[in-house]
Amino acid sequence: MQFDLQKSILILERTPTVLRELLEDLPEDWTTPNEGSDTWSPYDVIGHLVHGEQTDWITRTKIILEHGESRTFDPFDRFAQFEKSKGKSINELLDEFARLRKSNLEKLKSLNIKESDLDKPGMHPGLGKVTLRNLLSSWVVHDLGHIAQISRVMAKQYTAEVGPWYEYLGILK
Amino acid sequence: MQFDLQKSILILERTPTVLRELLEDLPEDWTTPNEGSDTWSPYDVIGHLVHGEQTDWITRTKIILEHGESRTFDPFDRFAQFEKSKGKSINELLDEFARLRKSNLEKLKSLNIKESDLDKPGMHPGLGKVTLRNLLSSWVVHDLGHIAQISRVMAKQYTAEVGPWYEYLGILK
Repeated sequence: MQFDLQKSILILERTPTVLRELLEDLPEDWTTPNEGSDTWSPYDVIGHLVHGEQTDWITRTKIILEHGESRTFDPFDRFAQFEKSKGKSINELLDEFARLRKSNLEKLKSLNIKESDLDKPGMHPGLGKVTLRNLLSSWVVHDLGHIAQISRVMAKQYTAEVGPWYEYLGILK
Repeated sequence: MQFDLQKSILILERTPTVLRELLEDLPEDWTTPNEGSDTWSPYDVIGHLVHGEQTDWITRTKIILEHGESRTFDPFDRFAQFEKSKGKSINELLDEFARLRKSNLEKLKSLNIKESDLDKPGMHPGLGKVTLRNLLSSWVVHDLGHIAQISRVMAKQYTAEVGPWYEYLGILK
């Protein structure tokens, strides 16, 4: 499938609702365990998505459109959520993510990105030269990857309970 | 996390809404491609979940409660959806899944399952002896596994578009 801005927005705009339906009001047994040391809980992932809305995707889109590859992106802090989420409930983080995403998609639409803009270059601090097409498709893949991750982390809480079914449940492996 | 019927129902009852938010009204570019030969598209997975509601989880729960391990479960047809879904839109399948799941959770609640029932045995045609606890926790894990699968299959449609970001997007590997 080739990148398509409208079809990408269709995914980006529904992610906050998908995550709200998946996580809102759940007891912490489902939302705070992770997959082991140095892994993230569903709660951690939502904080990470909030931070991405604040510093990553739209910020970098604007850098590409305004400066091209002459202005390297600021590095993204993958651990920011461990401080920034402190004291917030998962419902608060879900609300914050939904609000920020809505605002960022309005900004994205207002940029009137054309097909010819998609090959414009940017400079990633770790990956080197990228394009706007790479950035915007990665935003979509990143959303879907974290929905999959959250589902997997939740599934694993029952690993010991499924007994012989472990063999059939690939998500647990 | 130990199996808990109420906390399991919290997940089982939201799966249809999560999937509806993720897939409803999307163009087929997102819902019908799969991950390669002998793999399933999001459309196929919803058909599989419908068939599971019709023949698998609640049927087997009742067999355990009524017959224990003396009555082996009927084998589950993992390919039924390829015939049964024919001619139906993904929105129709999502509706059907939601309706069946709601009805099955009403049946589940009406069974008044007690903690002491959870160790009751059943006989799986492929896995051998299992318990009601194994069956009901597998139902939850199965839901979450298919949410993760659908997200992954969708993400992979942009594998060629993310360029250098491929390195950071574990979901694509």
